[in-house]
Amino acid sequence: MADKRAGCSIAILAGSGDLPPLLAEAVRHAGDEPVIFPIAGEADIADFAGFTAHEYRWGEIGGLFRLILGAGCREAVFIGGIARRPDFRAILPDLGGLLLLPRILKALRRGDDGVLSEIAGMFAEKGVKLVGPLTVAPELALPEGLVAGNNPAADLRADMERAAEAARAIGRLDIGQAAVAVDGRVVALEGAEGTDGLLERVADLRVAGRIAKSGGVLVKCMKPTQDPRLDLPGIGPRTATAARRAGLDGVAGEAGRALLAGRAETLAAFDEEGLFLIGLPYPRGETGAGDDG
Amino acid sequence: MADKRAGCSIAILAGSGDLPPLLAEAVRHAGDEPVIFPIAGEADIADFAGFTAHEYRWGEIGGLFRLILGAGCREAVFIGGIARRPDFRAILPDLGGLLLLPRILKALRRGDDGVLSEIAGMFAEKGVKLVGPLTVAPELALPEGLVAGNNPAADLRADMERAAEAARAIGRLDIGQAAVAVDGRVVALEGAEGTDGLLERVADLRVAGRIAKSGGVLVKCMKPTQDPRLDLPGIGPRTATAARRAGLDGVAGEAGRALLAGRAETLAAFDEEGLFLIGLPYPRGETGAGDDG
Repeated sequence: MADKRAGCSIAILAGSGDLPPLLAEAVRHAGDEPVIFPIAGEADIADFAGFTAHEYRWGEIGGLFRLILGAGCREAVFIGGIARRPDFRAILPDLGGLLLLPRILKALRRGDDGVLSEIAGMFAEKGVKLVGPLTVAPELALPEGLVAGNNPAADLRADMERAAEAARAIGRLDIGQAAVAVDGRVVALEGAEGTDGLLERVADLRVAGRIAKSGGVLVKCMKPTQDPRLDLPGIGPRTATAARRAGLDGVAGEAGRALLAGRAETLAAFDEEGLFLIGLPYPRGETGAGDDG
Repeated sequence: MADKRAGCSIAILAGSGDLPPLLAEAVRHAGDEPVIFPIAGEADIADFAGFTAHEYRWGEIGGLFRLILGAGCREAVFIGGIARRPDFRAILPDLGGLLLLPRILKALRRGDDGVLSEIAGMFAEKGVKLVGPLTVAPELALPEGLVAGNNPAADLRADMERAAEAARAIGRLDIGQAAVAVDGRVVALEGAEGTDGLLERVADLRVAGRIAKSGGVLVKCMKPTQDPRLDLPGIGPRTATAARRAGLDGVAGEAGRALLAGRAETLAAFDEEGLFLIGLPYPRGETGAGDDG
C-alpha cells in the first residue's frame, strides 16, 4: 500500500455499515483517490480492498494527523456508525492523542455532538478541512417526497409527524435521532442502542402485546443542533429489513440530510419489503442549510 | 362477597404491581372499606383476598359503573401499571361500553393521558369523583431529599439533571416518564416498554459495550401535562433491583408526585442494593400542585 497517490485529497474516517465503502467508491468515481481510515472495532479494513487504508484506533490521534497530512489530504470526511463509545480513559493514547486528551474527555461529557465537534475543531487546527459526506457525494442524499412504496394514508402521515416531532425533541437534547410511532402514539425513542436496537425493541414490544395495533412508521431526523458534516442519519437496505421485522409500514427521513446506503439497493429493499420510504422537508432556520461549513 | 358494605366510599381500579394492594390496605387502615376492581390481565384478583373485588375487563364500562354506584362508592382511584394497551376494537364491549366506544377510540389516539383523562371525564358524568392515590394515601408519596443510600457526588447530580430534563421532554409529548443518564449522557428513554423494559435495555447496552462508563441514574418524572390523579410514576423494591442490574448508582423521582410501593420495603431494597433514592423538587407552575382536582 502506497501512502501517497496522485490526486489524493480526501481522508475518509470510516465507521460501521455499508456507507463508508460506498463513499469511497463515490469519491473514486468522481476522479479523486481517498485514503481510508477504518475505525478499529467499527469498520473492517478488508471492506476497503483496492484502497489505501490504515486502521485507526481511538487515541492514536497524533498518528492519524501525521498519516492524513503525509498522504497529502487537505479534506477529511467522517462516515458510518460508531456503536461503541470510545473509552479514552481505558486506552493508552499516543503522544498526539495524549496532548488532546483533556479536550476529548471534556467533549465526551457533552454527548455525541460534543465529541465530533471537538474532533472537527482539531482537524481545522491541523489544516485539514472537515467536509460533509453529502458535499463529497451528493448522490447519497435521500431525495424529497415518496422514494419507494405506496403513498401512506392520512393516519400514517399523522404518525410520521408525531415521530418526527419526538425525534427532533430528543435530538435537541443530543440523545438520539429516531422515533417510532404506531397508531397515533410514539412507542419507542432511540438512545444509545441505535436504530437497529430501536427497531428490535419495537418487534419485541409487539410480541409482548404492548403495541396493540399493527403498522406504524420510523422517522429519523438530524439532531437540530448538530453539525451536518457529522453523523448524518443513514437509511439503507438493513433499515428496510429491520423496519419490516418491527411490523412497520414505512420509514421517513429528512430529504437532503439523510444518507442512503446505496440508492438502488435501498429502494429495491423497501419495495421488496413492501414498505414506503419518504424524504421529508426539514425545518428551515436550523442548521443544515449547507454542509460544507 | 357482598357488593355493599357499610362505610364503602372508594372504588379502586387496580392495574399491575405492588401498589394496588398497598393502597387497598391504606384505605382500610384509614377506616374506609374500598371496593376493588382488578383490571383483567394486569392485576390478580387473588391479591385482594379479604376485600370486595370484581374483576374488570376493558370494554365492560357500563357494568363497571353499575357496580361502583351499586356499592355506594362516590369516589374512585386508579392505581398500578397498565402494560397492555387495551385494544377496544378487538373486544366485545357491553352496552355501556358500546355507547362510550367512540370517545374511548378517540382518546386512545391521544396517548396514555388521552385515554385516562377521557375515562376520568366519564366517571365525573356518572357522579363518581376521580381522586388521586396520594389524596387517599399521602403516606405513599416519595418525600423530598435523600431517602435512601448515600448522597450522590456532583457528576451524578449532573446526570440526574440531564435525565430529568429528558424525562420531562418526552413527558410533554406524552411518550414516557423515565430516562437514564450515564457519565453526562442520556442513554435510554422510556417508551411503550415501561420502566422495567428501560432498565433491562440499559443492562443489555452495558453487556454490548455501548455504555462505556459504569454508574448512572434513573429519573422518573410525571408527564408535565398529565392529570396527577392518573398514572403517577411508581418506585418500589423492584425498581431498586432492576436499577442495580442496569449498573446504576441510584434513582430519583419527584417528591410528592411519585408513589413509593411501600416505604419501608422500598427503602430497605435501595439500601440492600447500595443505591441512592432521591426525591427531587418538581417545577412549579406545571400541573401537580394539588391532586384532588
